Order: sequence, then C-alpha cells, then structure tokens
Amino acid sequence: MDRGDGMRLVLHLRELHALADAERAAGRRIALVPTMGALHAGHASLCELARRHADRVWVSIFVNPAQFDDPGDLERYPRDLAGDLERCRRAGVDLVFAPDVAELYPPGAQTWVEVGELSRGLCGASRPGHFRGVATVVAKLLLAAKPHVAVFGAKDFQQLAVVRRLARDLCLDVEIVGAPIVREADGLALSSRNARLDPRSRREALCLSRALDAAERAVAAGERSTARLLALARSELAGARGAELDYAELRDPETLAPAGEALVGPALLALAVRFRTPDAAVRLIDNRVLVPEAPERVAPAREA
Amino acid sequence: MDRGDGMRLVLHLRELHALADAERAAGRRIALVPTMGALHAGHASLCELARRHADRVWVSIFVNPAQFDDPGDLERYPRDLAGDLERCRRAGVDLVFAPDVAELYPPGAQTWVEVGELSRGLCGASRPGHFRGVATVVAKLLLAAKPHVAVFGAKDFQQLAVVRRLARDLCLDVEIVGAPIVREADGLALSSRNARLDPRSRREALCLSRALDAAERAVAAGERSTARLLALARSELAGARGAELDYAELRDPETLAPAGEALVGPALLALAVRFRTPDAAVRLIDNRVLVPEAPERVAPAREA
Repeated sequence: MDRGDGMRLVLHLRELHALADAERAAGRRIALVPTMGALHAGHASLCELARRHADRVWVSIFVNPAQFDDPGDLERYPRDLAGDLERCRRAGVDLVFAPDVAELYPPGAQTWVEVGELSRGLCGASRPGHFRGVATVVAKLLLAAKPHVAVFGAKDFQQLAVVRRLARDLCLDVEIVGAPIVREADGLALSSRNARLDPRSRREALCLSRALDAAERAVAAGERSTARLLALARSELAGARGAELDYAELRDPETLAPAGEALVGPALLALAVRFRTPDAAVRLIDNRVLVPEAPERVAPAREA
Repeated sequence: MDRGDGMRLVLHLRELHALADAERAAGRRIALVPTMGALHAGHASLCELARRHADRVWVSIFVNPAQFDDPGDLERYPRDLAGDLERCRRAGVDLVFAPDVAELYPPGAQTWVEVGELSRGLCGASRPGHFRGVATVVAKLLLAAKPHVAVFGAKDFQQLAVVRRLARDLCLDVEIVGAPIVREADGLALSSRNARLDPRSRREALCLSRALDAAERAVAAGERSTARLLALARSELAGARGAELDYAELRDPETLAPAGEALVGPALLALAVRFRTPDAAVRLIDNRVLVPEAPERVAPAREA
C-alpha cells in the first residue's frame, strides 16, 4: 500500500520479502519490533530503541493463535488495528506488517520450532505449548521481514531468552536486542493485559513491582539467601487480595536454571500472578535481575 | 579463504552471511545445494540444475549428526572433504560451505524444527527423529546461506516434501527445486551409501529399480489396483537375496497420504530395503511417481 503518509501497511509476505530485499540492497538497516498489537507506551519505547539500531523501523502486528494455551485468553486478547496504526504513525514507524492468520499459517501448515530447556518451567510450566507457539511465530516473522535487528521487551524475560537462543541456534543473521521494562508511574509494568484489570485488581497488581522492590532492597542490604528472598517476594504477593501466585522464582538470567542456595551473581527474580476479575482471570508477569554487589563494594556504599 | 582457484571454501557462518549479503546486494542469485559430502554424479547433476536457476552455485558439505538415528551409520558415513572439494571445483561450484558441528550446533543448542504429518511414516517410521534432524539442519543451512533457490534430489522424496513444507510454513523467501533421480547405467539410483555395498549386494540392489520398472509397466498396461501394484513391487524385492524389505508404499506425491484402493492420479511408489553386507546393513531407498493415463488416452496409444 501507498506510503503517502510516511508509513506503509503490508499484509502479504511476498510484498514484505521484496521490500526487505530492496532495503537491504540499498544498504539500509531494518529493525523489526514484533508485537501482538494493543500497543502502549512500552511498545513505543521498543520502537525508539529500534530506531537507534537501524534506518528503518518495522512493526509486526499479529495475534498469534499458536501461543495461546487458553482459547478464552486468545478470544479476549485486545485488538485495535486502527488505533495501533495511529500509534505506530506517531512513533515514527516506517512499515507495519499485519498479516492475517492464513498468511503465516498457510493451509496444511505443520512446521514447528521448539526451543528445549529454556521453554520449560516458569511460564512454560503453566502455559503448555506457549513457547513452541512463540518460537514458531518469531521464526516466521524474522524470516518474513529479514531484519538486521529485532527488539523484544524484557518484561517477557523467558521469551527473550528463547528468542536469543533460537536466533543463534538457527544461524539467523539477526541481532536480538532486549529492551528495559517500561512502568506506570506507580510501578506496574506496562502490558496489553492491564486493560483487562478491574479497578481493584489494578490496585492489587502493584504487589508485583512491590515484591521486586522488596527483594532488590534486601539484596542491597546484604541478603544472599535464595530461600529468604523468595519468601520475601511471596509474602508481598500473598498480601494482595484476589491474587493467586503462579510462580516466584530465582533463575540464572541466561540459562534460566534455578539459582543456587545463595546468590553469587546476577539472578533473575521472575513472578507470575493471576488476578480474578469479575470477567475472567488476568495473568500478569514481571521480573528484575537482582545484582548482588561484592561485599567489599557494598560496605563503602552503606557508609555513604 | 581465497578464491585464487575460482572456488571459495567457507568454514564460518559470519563469513557466509557477509558473502550472501554481498551477492544479494549486487543483484546476483544464489543457489544452494545442501549435501552430506561423499559427492557423486547425482550431486553434480544437482549443481548443474542449480546453475540454471542462479548466478552463483554454493554447495554445503555437512554430515548432520542430528539426522542419524543409528550412531553406527553416522560413524560409517563416508567422508572425503579433499575429494569433494575437487569434485565441486570440476562441477564449477563457486563456494563450498563446510562448517564443523559446533558452528551449526553451538554449545547449548536446543532448537529444533519439526514438520508434522509429512515426517511420519515411510522413512520417518523406521528412522525415529530423522526428519526432525533434517528439518533442523536444512533450516540452519538456508538461514546461513540465504539462497534464492535450494536444490534437493528427488531420491529422498520424503525429505523433499518436508523441505518444501518447511520453507513455505516458515515464510522463507526461497524456492525449493527438486532434481530428478540420477541412475547408474544398470538402473541403481546414485547414493553415497552405494559405496558400502559388497559386490553381491550391489547386484541384488537392482531389485529396487526393477520393482519400480515393473510397477510402471503394469500401470502403463492399465493396472490401477494399489494392492496388486504393491504386491508386484514387493515380489521383485523379495526375489533379491540378503534384502530385507523396510517398506513399499503408494502415497500421494504431495501430502504423502496413503493412496486409495485404486490409482486415480499420480502416485508415489516409495521403496526402502536393507542389504546385509559382511560389514553392516546398508539401507537404500528409491521411488518413482506412477502416472496413470486416463483410459480414453490410453486406448489410442495402445493402437498406435
């Protein structure tokens, strides 16, 4: 479609392939920001970061059925293409790829990409098949758009680890960039699912960022026990009404293997909580990498 | 490495990515011929076909551990890089990519590509995990070399069907070209495994092409019964000493679904046989698409 307003909307693979080839042949770098739409300020920050890595910022908008373990969740996932296009335009995006399902999953499609160990545990444990769906659609999108760089938010930390591994394992010539979590003023991590919280759950959802803050403060104060840090985080989450803990775990930030008994290096604190709203359950995730400083360096900081 | 002799040997992904980008940016088309080495005249014919589709012919030589269900078979698989390079040079190949295992399967590699229904049955039934290994390495090689076209021999018919499906399903911007089976003068389909046949098995191995010929003649003479055609093929195979039938099947050439009771259109006759040699068992495959002509058209042809 035309580019009169400075942004191109592409619906078909063939067109996208040709445009990617043309940009690459002209020596211009493409950054892809894969999204499921329902764009918010978090996505805008991904686009900003993408712009710093490339000449062209491309956004894909595709609600990927294969990564929803719960059909109800897929059905309720917010969709607003017109609004999303307007948000992309304002964010200075050059191209939006918004294929329909048959374009990415043609009739008879039966090919799956699966990343092993990294897909198990955490969100993989409570959402069977989720990361197979994520890995498959990310592979498709990266091969569709042929970007030099692809940007993923760090809120979905496990997804970021899976995508990094996939790109490396499949010999993909693409740089995967992780973007820091963007938060509301009160600390809630931005998520398209926040729109589905009722006012009470919206208030209670702050338990996630409070749990991360509490653990971070404890580490800064010298706490190194994995069990005590997890107990601290879980007690913050338990204090929220209508919130059901899915998981609270400390993991190696790269391999996602469980942290040892004591923190000796950076560790990922990853949280997932389900909030009961009058309509349905809304599952939110959040995380932070806790970085214990060496004792020698902690001491002077305390005095200061 | 240098191109003094007109052919470049590339061992590393990074170099291959850069060369692919340069060729593509210059508007030159790349054809990739993925091989496991031990090159023979069949591979040379793939390279010839590749040349007709592209400006540059690239051959990959990589014995893929992931597609061997039998470690003994992997160990015994013939390897001859020096000879292969010489054969590529004579075939006018522009570039050979011969990575070591760690280049395609880096430490911690855990990503698998799997094609569903097409990978089951036939060779997939007797070689568990084989097509997952094939699909994974083909995806890696296509992403490593970024070709416009990739050429695969039709002897591995199921592999060709899996690769076509994979390319389409993963949105890969590559054309998959199937190349006709090349045969010895006496009819044996060329295969790197033929070198492992002892003289007696080499003679008995002709049962494969004889079975295909017999079925083809029967179809030309009006036979349409799937059961009778299979019985005919099996009796040819049973006549060979030291040959154990793995399978003889009639399938839809595209979906590989079993043919109905009567042939109404083209059907793939696919055969696999194990030959006992003094050293080990050697498994050979062969196939042909049987094309029943419509009765109205057969009648005049008979009169002529």
